[in-house]
Amino acid sequence: MTVLTEHISVKTKGEVDIIDLTDKVEGAVENSGLSKGIVTIFVPGSTGALTTIEYEPGLLQDFPAALERIAGRDISYEHETRWHDGNGHSHVRASLLGPSLTVPFNDSKLILGTWQQIVFVELDVRSRARNLVVQIIGE
Amino acid sequence: MTVLTEHISVKTKGEVDIIDLTDKVEGAVENSGLSKGIVTIFVPGSTGALTTIEYEPGLLQDFPAALERIAGRDISYEHETRWHDGNGHSHVRASLLGPSLTVPFNDSKLILGTWQQIVFVELDVRSRARNLVVQIIGE
Amino acid sequence: MTVLTEHISVKTKGEVDIIDLTDKVEGAVENSGLSKGIVTIFVPGSTGALTTIEYEPGLLQDFPAALERIAGRDISYEHETRWHDGNGHSHVRASLLGPSLTVPFNDSKLILGTWQQIVFVELDVRSRARNLVVQIIGE
Repeated sequence: MTVLTEHISVKTKGEVDIIDLTDKVEGAVENSGLSKGIVTIFVPGSTGALTTIEYEPGLLQDFPAALERIAGRDISYEHETRWHDGNGHSHVRASLLGPSLTVPFNDSKLILGTWQQIVFVELDVRSRARNLVVQIIGE
Repeated sequence: MTVLTEHISVKTKGEVDIIDLTDKVEGAVENSGLSKGIVTIFVPGSTGALTTIEYEPGLLQDFPAALERIAGRDISYEHETRWHDGNGHSHVRASLLGPSLTVPFNDSKLILGTWQQIVFVELDVRSRARNLVVQIIGE
Repeated sequence: MTVLTEHISVKTKGEVDIIDLTDKVEGAVENSGLSKGIVTIFVPGSTGALTTIEYEPGLLQDFPAALERIAGRDISYEHETRWHDGNGHSHVRASLLGPSLTVPFNDSKLILGTWQQIVFVELDVRSRARNLVVQIIGE
């Protein structure tokens, strides 16, 4: 059993940029030399999230639309009243979705559905350079 | 430390079928021969999710009702415009809930609350055969 | 590779109390003697949740406000009709957020953003004594 730490750096375009990480996570698992285990992808930061989605243009509009219904840009946030950085809704969305995703692998391959991609969801209102952590545990 | 991969096959009834997996996950942990560690339950696919719930008939209605408020069947989805498979809301709900759940175990027993069950949530609009992954890591 | 189980006991004030666990989780990782791995924080129980948030007074109001929009206290719940414990919305919120959070660590330090804290979210309507599980796996 071994633990390996890799990083994925992405430059995002701001709200709501959804970035497909599948190939990079798959590559990290293959390069690890490990056969089976789990990989945890994590965003250090409170305005981004990890999940999976079928990465096609329709859902890249539908998912942000759902976030807008749940925590809209135009309602009042106490965070805004105090900090004036315009991203109260970004923080709320990030806490709802969560900063972490754990995916199993076997035979050095991620166990994913055919139409299922690992994505980072940029929720902040501006472009950000994100350094995501890929923690691989296995044997 | 060892990694073990088990599978749980379920036949779902379509939207929103909530299936109690607790006994099967508990059985997989007991059969692993491992004493302590974590188990990750994962759905390969982009229209299902894992979470925990008190598995009683009231909440089996209340939880789908909340999903209907967040991502209703009857609003317009770009996914639908492109693919015409009637499950845009299923994808959005799945990405919000997440495909993965990690639960600790000790003395070969899952550490769960008395009224807390591990469930698979079928979000697709039709019956599906799901082959869920149970990845156990421990010693 | 080793697995260590720690516990964090918290006394909550009821709905929606958000408790910063970062220092206690960080302490558990430091005391483990492990250098790198993952830590899973888990609530045994179906009316609480784990996530991360920027722990500042504005968001401690904004996040509960979002939960109120998603699963409000004053709408009708079938759980309530059956059990009369006034916490149907608590269960629904908990299942949406999830009972589990996994965070990587390196050099015996949690990999978190500067403005990102690990929190337990009490969703039940009354004060609760919670015994959270901190499962550490690493080397």
